[in-house]
Amino acid sequence: MTASWRPTLFTSQGSRGLRATWAACEAGVELDLHMLPFPPRFLKPEYLEENPLGTIPLLVDGDTRMTESCAIAHYLAVKGAAPSLVVSADEPDWAEYLDFTYHADATITFPQTVYLRFAKFEKDKGFEEAGIAYGKWFGKRLIKVEQRLSDREFLCRSRFTVADICVGYALYLANRIGLAEYITPRLADYLETLMRRDGFQKAMLLEKAGAEAVGVHSAVG
Amino acid sequence: MTASWRPTLFTSQGSRGLRATWAACEAGVELDLHMLPFPPRFLKPEYLEENPLGTIPLLVDGDTRMTESCAIAHYLAVKGAAPSLVVSADEPDWAEYLDFTYHADATITFPQTVYLRFAKFEKDKGFEEAGIAYGKWFGKRLIKVEQRLSDREFLCRSRFTVADICVGYALYLANRIGLAEYITPRLADYLETLMRRDGFQKAMLLEKAGAEAVGVHSAVG
Repeated sequence: MTASWRPTLFTSQGSRGLRATWAACEAGVELDLHMLPFPPRFLKPEYLEENPLGTIPLLVDGDTRMTESCAIAHYLAVKGAAPSLVVSADEPDWAEYLDFTYHADATITFPQTVYLRFAKFEKDKGFEEAGIAYGKWFGKRLIKVEQRLSDREFLCRSRFTVADICVGYALYLANRIGLAEYITPRLADYLETLMRRDGFQKAMLLEKAGAEAVGVHSAVG
Repeated sequence: MTASWRPTLFTSQGSRGLRATWAACEAGVELDLHMLPFPPRFLKPEYLEENPLGTIPLLVDGDTRMTESCAIAHYLAVKGAAPSLVVSADEPDWAEYLDFTYHADATITFPQTVYLRFAKFEKDKGFEEAGIAYGKWFGKRLIKVEQRLSDREFLCRSRFTVADICVGYALYLANRIGLAEYITPRLADYLETLMRRDGFQKAMLLEKAGAEAVGVHSAVG
C-alpha cells in the first residue's frame, strides 16, 4: 500500500476492536483511531450515523465500511501487505486458518458477551444464571483451541497469524471479565506469548492513549 | 478437483450446517452426508468422538476438520472450483464479502440461538424474557443487510455468492423459529429469491432424504 493509506477505525478500548488495532500494528498499518465510550450506542448515540448497528469496531476505508473484527483483522493484514500474518488458499493449514478466524468470534466471543450482559451489566434483572450458563458454554467450547495447541506454538503454519489475533483476543477477554477459570495452563501460556508481542503491546498503548485523549474508559473493566 | 473428491459433512437437518450443504450443491461438490439428531451432543453422544465441541456442522476432508459453517461454505466453493461463488481479494466488494460472511454467524445467527434456548427449548426455566431480548437484538442487527440490499439484488458484485448463503441462512432460520416479525418485506423478497435457487432446493432435498434414511428429525421444527 502507499504510505498515505490510513483507514479509520472506530472502537472502544479493550473491546473486540482490539483485534483490528492489533492486526494493524502487526502489519505496520497506520490507523486513524477514534476511541468511543462503551457501549457507544447509548453513550454516544451520534455514532449510529456512522454505524447504524451501533456495534464496534467499524473500519472505514474509502467507500468500504466493515463491522466484523475478525474480517477487519484479515483485511488489514492482506491490504497491509503482511503475507506472513495470513494463510493463503495454496498453503497447508488454510482450512484451519479460515475455521479459527470464524470460530473466534461466532463460537468463543459471542457467548462471553451473553455472560457479560446477564451476569455482569444487568445482574439485577434476574437473569444472572442465564449469563453464567453462557460462561460455562464458552468454557466448554475452548476444547478446539486447546487440542489444536497441544502440540503447536501457534494455531497455523508454526507462525503467528491473524488466527492467533482472533482467538487470542477471546482468551484475553475471558481473563478481563471473570471467566479466567476456563483458561487452562496451556491457553494461559499461549496468551502470554501473544501478549508479549510488540504488536500487542503497541496496540494496547495506542488504544489507551486514544481513549485518554478523549476521556473515555475501557470497554472491559 | 478430481471427481473422487468427496468430503464428509456431519450436520442436522435445517441447522446452520445447511450453509455447507447448500454451498456444496451450488459448487457441484458431492458430499458424504451424515445426518444427526439435534442436538447431537445429547442425542448421539458418540459424535463427541468426531467433534469434541459437540457442535454441528463438522466437515472432514482428509486431515482437515472444520466446524464453522461460514468457513466451510467458503472452503467448499474455493476447493470446488466455483469462483463465481466467491469474491477474491483482487475484486471490488471483497471487503464486503468478508464482512458479511463473518457477520452472518457471529452477529445475526448467534443471538437467534440464545433466543431459541431461553425462549423455546428451556422456556420453563425462567429466562424466557432473556431469550426474547436476544430475539429483539437480532432484529435490530438486520439493519446492515437491509441497507446493503436496498439497491442491490445480492450482497456482493451483483451476483449470488457465499455471502448470500451465509446471510440467507440466518434469515431462513428466523422464519423457522418464530422471529419472522423482524424479516422486512425487502428481506423476505431476498430470501425468496435465494430459496428458489436449484442449489437451495437440492440441499433441502438432500438433507431431508439423509435425515429420513436414518430416522432423525429437523433441527429447527
